[in-house]
Amino acid sequence: MITSHLRRPDGTLVSPVSEEAMRQALASGEGLLWIDLEAASEAEASILSDVFQFHHLAIEDCFNTHVDPAKIDDYGDYLFLIAQAISSVDGGERLETTELDLYLGRNYVVSFHSQPLPFVQEIRLRCEKNGLDMARGADFLAHSLLDQLVDDFQPIVEQLDEQLEHVEEQVLAEPHASFLEEILLLKRNVQRLRRTLIPQRDMVNRIARGEFPKLVREESYLYFRDIYDHVVRVAELVESVRDLADGVLNSYLSAINNRMNEVMKTLSVVASILLPLTFIASIYGMNFQHMPELTWRYGYFLALAAMLAVALGLAMFFRLRRWF
Amino acid sequence: MITSHLRRPDGTLVSPVSEEAMRQALASGEGLLWIDLEAASEAEASILSDVFQFHHLAIEDCFNTHVDPAKIDDYGDYLFLIAQAISSVDGGERLETTELDLYLGRNYVVSFHSQPLPFVQEIRLRCEKNGLDMARGADFLAHSLLDQLVDDFQPIVEQLDEQLEHVEEQVLAEPHASFLEEILLLKRNVQRLRRTLIPQRDMVNRIARGEFPKLVREESYLYFRDIYDHVVRVAELVESVRDLADGVLNSYLSAINNRMNEVMKTLSVVASILLPLTFIASIYGMNFQHMPELTWRYGYFLALAAMLAVALGLAMFFRLRRWF
Amino acid sequence: MITSHLRRPDGTLVSPVSEEAMRQALASGEGLLWIDLEAASEAEASILSDVFQFHHLAIEDCFNTHVDPAKIDDYGDYLFLIAQAISSVDGGERLETTELDLYLGRNYVVSFHSQPLPFVQEIRLRCEKNGLDMARGADFLAHSLLDQLVDDFQPIVEQLDEQLEHVEEQVLAEPHASFLEEILLLKRNVQRLRRTLIPQRDMVNRIARGEFPKLVREESYLYFRDIYDHVVRVAELVESVRDLADGVLNSYLSAINNRMNEVMKTLSVVASILLPLTFIASIYGMNFQHMPELTWRYGYFLALAAMLAVALGLAMFFRLRRWF
Amino acid sequence: MITSHLRRPDGTLVSPVSEEAMRQALASGEGLLWIDLEAASEAEASILSDVFQFHHLAIEDCFNTHVDPAKIDDYGDYLFLIAQAISSVDGGERLETTELDLYLGRNYVVSFHSQPLPFVQEIRLRCEKNGLDMARGADFLAHSLLDQLVDDFQPIVEQLDEQLEHVEEQVLAEPHASFLEEILLLKRNVQRLRRTLIPQRDMVNRIARGEFPKLVREESYLYFRDIYDHVVRVAELVESVRDLADGVLNSYLSAINNRMNEVMKTLSVVASILLPLTFIASIYGMNFQHMPELTWRYGYFLALAAMLAVALGLAMFFRLRRWF
Amino acid sequence: MITSHLRRPDGTLVSPVSEEAMRQALASGEGLLWIDLEAASEAEASILSDVFQFHHLAIEDCFNTHVDPAKIDDYGDYLFLIAQAISSVDGGERLETTELDLYLGRNYVVSFHSQPLPFVQEIRLRCEKNGLDMARGADFLAHSLLDQLVDDFQPIVEQLDEQLEHVEEQVLAEPHASFLEEILLLKRNVQRLRRTLIPQRDMVNRIARGEFPKLVREESYLYFRDIYDHVVRVAELVESVRDLADGVLNSYLSAINNRMNEVMKTLSVVASILLPLTFIASIYGMNFQHMPELTWRYGYFLALAAMLAVALGLAMFFRLRRWF
Repeated sequence: MITSHLRRPDGTLVSPVSEEAMRQALASGEGLLWIDLEAASEAEASILSDVFQFHHLAIEDCFNTHVDPAKIDDYGDYLFLIAQAISSVDGGERLETTELDLYLGRNYVVSFHSQPLPFVQEIRLRCEKNGLDMARGADFLAHSLLDQLVDDFQPIVEQLDEQLEHVEEQVLAEPHASFLEEILLLKRNVQRLRRTLIPQRDMVNRIARGEFPKLVREESYLYFRDIYDHVVRVAELVESVRDLADGVLNSYLSAINNRMNEVMKTLSVVASILLPLTFIASIYGMNFQHMPELTWRYGYFLALAAMLAVALGLAMFFRLRRWF
Repeated sequence: MITSHLRRPDGTLVSPVSEEAMRQALASGEGLLWIDLEAASEAEASILSDVFQFHHLAIEDCFNTHVDPAKIDDYGDYLFLIAQAISSVDGGERLETTELDLYLGRNYVVSFHSQPLPFVQEIRLRCEKNGLDMARGADFLAHSLLDQLVDDFQPIVEQLDEQLEHVEEQVLAEPHASFLEEILLLKRNVQRLRRTLIPQRDMVNRIARGEFPKLVREESYLYFRDIYDHVVRVAELVESVRDLADGVLNSYLSAINNRMNEVMKTLSVVASILLPLTFIASIYGMNFQHMPELTWRYGYFLALAAMLAVALGLAMFFRLRRWF
Repeated sequence: MITSHLRRPDGTLVSPVSEEAMRQALASGEGLLWIDLEAASEAEASILSDVFQFHHLAIEDCFNTHVDPAKIDDYGDYLFLIAQAISSVDGGERLETTELDLYLGRNYVVSFHSQPLPFVQEIRLRCEKNGLDMARGADFLAHSLLDQLVDDFQPIVEQLDEQLEHVEEQVLAEPHASFLEEILLLKRNVQRLRRTLIPQRDMVNRIARGEFPKLVREESYLYFRDIYDHVVRVAELVESVRDLADGVLNSYLSAINNRMNEVMKTLSVVASILLPLTFIASIYGMNFQHMPELTWRYGYFLALAAMLAVALGLAMFFRLRRWF
Repeated sequence: MITSHLRRPDGTLVSPVSEEAMRQALASGEGLLWIDLEAASEAEASILSDVFQFHHLAIEDCFNTHVDPAKIDDYGDYLFLIAQAISSVDGGERLETTELDLYLGRNYVVSFHSQPLPFVQEIRLRCEKNGLDMARGADFLAHSLLDQLVDDFQPIVEQLDEQLEHVEEQVLAEPHASFLEEILLLKRNVQRLRRTLIPQRDMVNRIARGEFPKLVREESYLYFRDIYDHVVRVAELVESVRDLADGVLNSYLSAINNRMNEVMKTLSVVASILLPLTFIASIYGMNFQHMPELTWRYGYFLALAAMLAVALGLAMFFRLRRWF
Repeated sequence: MITSHLRRPDGTLVSPVSEEAMRQALASGEGLLWIDLEAASEAEASILSDVFQFHHLAIEDCFNTHVDPAKIDDYGDYLFLIAQAISSVDGGERLETTELDLYLGRNYVVSFHSQPLPFVQEIRLRCEKNGLDMARGADFLAHSLLDQLVDDFQPIVEQLDEQLEHVEEQVLAEPHASFLEEILLLKRNVQRLRRTLIPQRDMVNRIARGEFPKLVREESYLYFRDIYDHVVRVAELVESVRDLADGVLNSYLSAINNRMNEVMKTLSVVASILLPLTFIASIYGMNFQHMPELTWRYGYFLALAAMLAVALGLAMFFRLRRWF
């Protein structure tokens, strides 16, 4: 699906834009053209090569189905950017990345994504309403898209953080074997977020540092620097979530271990007390003909008393060693 | 709440400063103006844009509620700094960071924080008393604020160190499951401190290296270098606390394990000695009609003697293997 | 085995190429010559020194039997590259690397490998069909070879990923000691892949950055940058597989541990309940002459009831502590 | 306590030096002045500001009681260095660092330390004897001080190494819980040494690289490079001690574990053999009226034989599984 | 022991060389002089200072008994290199490093080592036979020495690799406590190799990059680059051996753990089955006067049947849970 907008030099907005008008805008270098390709068919995407005449390597990067780490390539007349948007699916259980490809020219932005991206839709509406995002040039429009994309990371990390804190509480209340899988899954998600963020940060930093003066104006550097700060902040959050995950894993393993210790200690105390008692009883269960104690009047009660004494002695011994 | 001070070129101090006087000071570039906004309402904060005409990105960074890592942005006529002050709450159990935002111009400093910061109050009093901090220029005033902010880290790290040493002593005396949570919490606090410090260090280093010659004079580099040294020293302390935390965690886990070993060894010794004895007793508890030993005159005593021999033999065996 | 192709300036393709024609092509600097040496004997390889007059160090690197990390050496008139192709043997159990050595001159490419490489064969066929790979110059031909070589990594990493996910499922269903070896083997394979990739990435990056302008034309940089992106993507995948491997290892160890805990808990519960019961029974198995309970009419049933009470009490106690 | 030496241009040595003579030497720039302040009172230290007019930040760094990481500050006319000397106290149990502060001017060295340092004393004696260290200029004297300071690290690291090897031997002979604390303490000491060394290395490297050509002459670079090599060698040693410490920790944990395994195996074997035997005995201890075996002539001996058979069978089974 | 060779400009080889001839060669700068000092006495080594007039710091580095990390120092007229040769003693159990010090001048090489080095001997013989190594200049001779030194690492690493694989096989067949020490020793050796290699690599790289154009000719860079490649390859091998060592350690720990689990499971199954049986038997071993079952005709057999039923039931339960 193609959506196209053209902001004419006089400030009026045209949508959709005919191929003819696109070529004209490209030729004149005036106005601002924004083409958004969402889950575009190869036929629809043909304007990438036909109208815009982008390099076939940049076009192939749009169509391959791999998850490409974020990058930025300078093709002279235009920049080609790959960014990864993130969204949580299945109620936050799984993280999904959607690739957003951007071609940034002097007076045009072409965005390409195989899945619908809510924030692109939002910016489109904003443009149609007041045209502000498009009034400030192609680099500012690209900035708006990347800014929104990066902003989506914050709530996801915060959600991971909350999930982990929730798991931690439950783990401390009652360590269950099922938590391990959840903790490991959360840890893996955190790792993945981290690896998605790092190249994104570097890409934005390259723009903010002014590496592409031909296509990004100096007055826009601050805006990209702002995105950079956001990525850094999110990365910082991710690190602290990772610490939390390690802590929860430690708590879990230790809780499991504590419970095991408790079980073993109980067994040890019970066995260590009862084995001697049973031994005493079994002595007087022997059938020797000559066992003087058996004929004593209070033999039985003496035996019981002896057992009680042994039991109490052992219990005190264990108590002293703080085994229970 | 806004507090404003103006040190006139003649050395007199005016407070509060009217908006009119502010504009005049900014226009003339003479004297030194210090505006402190504490938990300011948006209305109060409007002077940031109206009077000082700061960039809206820098203003937004003050008002967002995220924890921003320390940074420094060069806006040409002024620098925008974010620093993180630290304080311990709940009797040292929890660390809290408060963001201090600074705008440093040629003859003004604007400080912005959402929470009251004791050291800002202190510097304010010092200024009012002798005006020394304000007599040496805007960069020196900014240095004073950052210096105090960094100085607050030292006691916090030392407190963490003491807490850990206290926990360690208790762990070695008696390892209790409850310590684990405390150790993990302390470790997390240490990690957090570390991550708060690193960008702070880099920010101060950039100033000390003379990256902003327009707004920070060469004679002030040494002072920022001094702050840098403090941050490095605190970071060094944090590392050693982290080592300590790892050591305490190891001690704890090992102490728990030792106790478990002791319990298991006792059980093993008791069971290994008593099971054979009980077995011997149960043999003579059998009801076979033809059991010669049962009729022996000293059968019973021989049986007891045999048991004693077995018990002593086993005890010696275990002793030899140093099991108890 | 030597295969040789010469694309004449007029676009015709000659194969095989006589030594005479090779020398002529080298002397004239026209056309494009591709010599592929597969498991070449020293005699066959003599053209390296005789015809092409490569440096003996570069030739020795082809013939040594060690696994050389990827590298690129600039000999002025030609570049010498070592790359490592990968293939999985024994049904994916073992990874095997095959060294591909490339000499890249202005109008020739000499490829050398001790094992047949399917992708070299494929490019050869492609050249013979339409000559496209050879029509665009020596650097493009070298790019084609490296591109295919790198593309072979992706399916291997994906296969490792699948194997790990398969193992993980099985581990969660039933942790078997045999899995450990498999997990450790997979981990080692991942490590090895990683170490094979990193120097490859650096080598390609050096070309893409334009370090060798004499032999790689500027218009080819993009193509090498494309390979670079692929290597980065694969390396990213490898990292995530490594995380997965660590997770599976953790799951395995934890599952083993859980099973052990379950066994120990069952033993503890059984022993802790039955030892007291047996003790009671053994009391009334004593042969004292004066044991009042023995003569009671319902003594036996009272004893059984007492046992039942003890058993239920203990069971409830363990239940409360959630031991089963 | 102040010690002062002045080597006059004619080679004669004066000690102590009057404040008047100091000022003269500073003004003329001739001769070499060495002032050593050991545990100096503020009154004594006043010459730092009065005579030498050092920057108050550098003076404050001398008097603060924190452990400052090694650093070097360039104040134009003089360098200010902080180095950390090390010594072991309590028979090698504890490492203590003493700060040595150096001011290095064109023709003077001022050393400041709060504790007596044996090597400073030694160099002083050497100077008084033959004056060689002072004959070669201020930078060479500073080099001598730092060289001796660094040389003190080597025996300390070697001592740690020996202690660890001693502990390792004991651990392998008999793992005792008390070793853990010792190993962890040694590990912590190693970490600390490492963190003390790294900034020291960087500081010396900056001088050796010629960053301070105004105060350190080119012919002295080699000498500082020599100190640098020593620090690198010691750092290398520290790394290998750290490996050793990790190895000993592993040995210890594994030895503890092995012992536990041995205990558990013995218990398991004893219990697994004796429980069946006791069960057989208890069968024939039942009081049923109709138990044919009880009346058999050789019933008792058959029962004993059965027990023996079971015991031997189980023992063989365990032997086969190599449990003992 | 001093060995000296002089290759005269006319290609003839003189050995030994008189001190007079040495001085002449140094003065003329013609021919190539190679002096090898093996375990030289201080008297023999006096030519270092007397004839060659090397800097005393460089000479001291030869005589100190510490293990110096590899380095290269530029003394203007000559380079001073320290390299570490490796050899395995005690049948491969222990690795020993021997320091090789090289002075590389324009037309001389002085090698110094405290232990005999086989490869130095070998190169000496080669020189005497055909003089090739000496025919190509001082830098090439130094290259030959370093090349051989580095080549000795490969078989050592391969031997470590084989030892580890051997240990791994044995560990999987039967984990014995004694293996741990061996694995830890191998790991430590690997670490040490790694730390010996890294500075060596950096040293060679500095030469190969052309940092010393005065003493190493451009045509020799390739040869040093070749050594560099070898070091990188060996370092790569070392990394993979380290992975293997970690894997073997994991296998060992896991095998020990598995065995323990097996032992505990057997104990648990035996105890859990026999305790209930013994309990049943002990019930009917009680001496109550009124126990109806005792008088039943088939009481005994019913009891035995009950026991069998309980045993089978429990065995099935454990089987179901896959405990054996």
